[in-house]
Amino acid sequence: MSILYDERVDGALPKVDKAALLAELRQRLPDLDILHTQEDLKPYECDGLSAYRTTPMLVVLPEHIEQVQQLLKLCHARGVPVVARGAGTGLSGGALPLEQGILLVMARFNQILEINREGRFARVQPGVRNLAISQAAAPFDLYYAPDPSSQIACSIGGNVAENAGGVHCLKYGLTVHNLLKVDILTVEGEFMTLGSDALDAPGFDLLALFTGSEGMLGIVTEVTVKLLPKPQVAKVLLAAFDSVEKAGRAVGDIIAAGIIPGGLEMMDNLAIRAAEDFIHAGYPVEAEAILLCELDGVEADVADDCERVREVLEKAGATEVRLARDEAERVKFWAGRKNAFPAVGRISPDYYCMDGTIPRRELPGVLRGIAELSEEYGLRVANVFHAGDGNMHPLILFDANVPGELERAEAIGGKILELCVKVGGSITGEHGVGREKINQMCAQFNSDEITLFHAVKAAFDPSGLLNPGKNIPTLHRCAEFGAMHVHHGQLPFPELERF
Amino acid sequence: MSILYDERVDGALPKVDKAALLAELRQRLPDLDILHTQEDLKPYECDGLSAYRTTPMLVVLPEHIEQVQQLLKLCHARGVPVVARGAGTGLSGGALPLEQGILLVMARFNQILEINREGRFARVQPGVRNLAISQAAAPFDLYYAPDPSSQIACSIGGNVAENAGGVHCLKYGLTVHNLLKVDILTVEGEFMTLGSDALDAPGFDLLALFTGSEGMLGIVTEVTVKLLPKPQVAKVLLAAFDSVEKAGRAVGDIIAAGIIPGGLEMMDNLAIRAAEDFIHAGYPVEAEAILLCELDGVEADVADDCERVREVLEKAGATEVRLARDEAERVKFWAGRKNAFPAVGRISPDYYCMDGTIPRRELPGVLRGIAELSEEYGLRVANVFHAGDGNMHPLILFDANVPGELERAEAIGGKILELCVKVGGSITGEHGVGREKINQMCAQFNSDEITLFHAVKAAFDPSGLLNPGKNIPTLHRCAEFGAMHVHHGQLPFPELERF
Repeated sequence: MSILYDERVDGALPKVDKAALLAELRQRLPDLDILHTQEDLKPYECDGLSAYRTTPMLVVLPEHIEQVQQLLKLCHARGVPVVARGAGTGLSGGALPLEQGILLVMARFNQILEINREGRFARVQPGVRNLAISQAAAPFDLYYAPDPSSQIACSIGGNVAENAGGVHCLKYGLTVHNLLKVDILTVEGEFMTLGSDALDAPGFDLLALFTGSEGMLGIVTEVTVKLLPKPQVAKVLLAAFDSVEKAGRAVGDIIAAGIIPGGLEMMDNLAIRAAEDFIHAGYPVEAEAILLCELDGVEADVADDCERVREVLEKAGATEVRLARDEAERVKFWAGRKNAFPAVGRISPDYYCMDGTIPRRELPGVLRGIAELSEEYGLRVANVFHAGDGNMHPLILFDANVPGELERAEAIGGKILELCVKVGGSITGEHGVGREKINQMCAQFNSDEITLFHAVKAAFDPSGLLNPGKNIPTLHRCAEFGAMHVHHGQLPFPELERF
Repeated sequence: MSILYDERVDGALPKVDKAALLAELRQRLPDLDILHTQEDLKPYECDGLSAYRTTPMLVVLPEHIEQVQQLLKLCHARGVPVVARGAGTGLSGGALPLEQGILLVMARFNQILEINREGRFARVQPGVRNLAISQAAAPFDLYYAPDPSSQIACSIGGNVAENAGGVHCLKYGLTVHNLLKVDILTVEGEFMTLGSDALDAPGFDLLALFTGSEGMLGIVTEVTVKLLPKPQVAKVLLAAFDSVEKAGRAVGDIIAAGIIPGGLEMMDNLAIRAAEDFIHAGYPVEAEAILLCELDGVEADVADDCERVREVLEKAGATEVRLARDEAERVKFWAGRKNAFPAVGRISPDYYCMDGTIPRRELPGVLRGIAELSEEYGLRVANVFHAGDGNMHPLILFDANVPGELERAEAIGGKILELCVKVGGSITGEHGVGREKINQMCAQFNSDEITLFHAVKAAFDPSGLLNPGKNIPTLHRCAEFGAMHVHHGQLPFPELERF
């Protein structure tokens, strides 16, 4: 199955002589683990977005950073594209390999180098799993805040590349807000440090620029993340609503009341039923929508906030508000939410997970719009998302074996993202652009902005060898896609064009 | 008086025919307020760093964004450099004008365009004063968190340009952490929007890149800032110590105890005495150092934290711990701190304010190092700073009328910044690089890193017309300065140079 797969990127790349490259790699890096047979390459043909598949030319699995450096120098000299990959859990095809390129797997760099209690940071290799950092910091009562649903498996290097989020990023920020320093190798194989151990680094903020750049600006070799003290206590409220719009409005009401929950998640009826069937979390299956609101901090504060949130929820029309009575129930409430994707996978042969972000105040209107699109296209859409920060994950249910459904799923997905852009939001919250949403970038940005993105890319990688064809579309592609966005398109003083 | 003034920047710029440019501007922009006489230009010859002065060629004070756009288009066409300026309160000479350039004063763009309670943001013009945003948001119980000491006067556009901080940035972050969106004009006079109203914008994070870029990447035309709910209550503890090192260690202990104060400031004896003489804040003048620790949030939480912090302080060897008994005393405690710079100005004919950042754990050692340098150079140094985030502001006291003191002040200032870099810190925390610290950038970054900065600059401004000579040194300058930093300088595999 291939949704939207686009061969133009590979087609535009220079032909590489695989046999000669393999021979040279073996000669120069005799200890480097290289996969080259069709059978060995097969498992690497996609990342977490399995709808897109390409067989990489070669897969390399280095164990020493010096091997990565040598590999990059060689690839740079030979003009061979390189796609870096962590655990391969990304959902937008950011680590999709190239037929004419090397897939650089960083998974073996899995050492935690330092946990510093006083400085509250962890220094780790890029292949370290997200959750492993919090586990290593736990003896010091510290943890690493960003917690994507894939945190058991996903690597911190990939988190940096995609600027990963999670259910707690409303309060604790995305990956970029939780980094101190990233060491990278440039496309030329030079070491460089972005950020510092201190508050702020002078010059341009290249650390923030690099975070979320999807492997296009350099290869992560080491990451220094901030650690936070574990909250004394965490409580979860579950509120049921008889309409998704009421639930959407309640989200805004909570924030407007001056409360910043640790997490604030929403699920609609389809998602509630699927999750309940799968996990038996104790969700009210008759509800049109539920909110899960986690409050964390010191005991007295949390108790106070729970009361205030309960009041807001009741005033917003909740038909039921339940406080998880103990830690076991709290974990159960979250298990339902965190397993909502696989739960939906049980009720539909295929589903397509979107990731759009909207200003919080637009939630009720956008939910209504999605319901209308669902009706129009005849496909069910389950909504499960980070309501607090307006990061939506509509799941479009379809059956790829029914002729036309795949195309309709693609079409409604595109429409939903365009709706997000229209209300002032964006086409991705935390999953990245990758290969999946490259066309939608044309709707998000105008040609000046896209040109600037390319110029920034060229500042790091003038040869364009790092993960080509992802994240930033060419203007040519946008013209073909026919959705070049024009804003501020009217020059207020046309006569100035003369200058 | 001119510390470190460097004429090479102006010298390297193309000569501009002032009379012809003035005539053309008047013809094309008849309504634009232009200053051109020596008398009118005089007040604009420096920003808050008065040691550096240059008379600008022309000063323009636009009132409509379209005038800015036209001006930029004209300057771009004619190759005329442009330096943007807000309120001119910057402390690193970032808005220092050019003899061969236009000083673009954005102060008249002082309208608050929107305060959005539900979305918790304010949309303002760039010339709006920092404090005015919080004042406008106050009726909604919201405020804008970053609070530089100059907040009565400094403008939000300048805050964006310098990524301004303040006493609360330990808990609430720098300017970059409190922005949603910035509208800019490019050097070519094109409008562009960086960031979005939503959580995250796809593509590269140009908003973060732009923040702190010191007017080198574009001109801010509108800023959308995040607003936070005002804390229910704020309390301040004052702790006295018989050594600065003990106070420095106490800072780390508070953070290690899992408490994030709203503000955590330190002053040494010289600063305490100066402030007490000036403000009568009630400081213990015999103490070698004091810490001011503000705790804010909901009532119960703050009371709890106050007790915990008191315990930590006592354990760390505080000779006295005092809780401000009421709001009046709390304000008094802060007034002493916020007026420490002018207070020091009363006890010395001249002082030179440094702004370095270090990892928090290095505080005791760096304070000892500063004391040794003070001894060695025979100049008093007062320390007043944001201890919580390791952002130091040593004030070097000197008398410019005593031969040699100015040079020694410069020399010790440079040594202190180098000490910051040596322990893993940086040469600026919140004041920016500007013209002042451009040589120290050569100590902070290696040639690859500086080359990358220039490439990023060129992506936005290939003609180099926006604020040339600030922030990023040329490699040539670094070679002359003789302090080119080399790290990772040893290529692990020299033979790879063959590629």
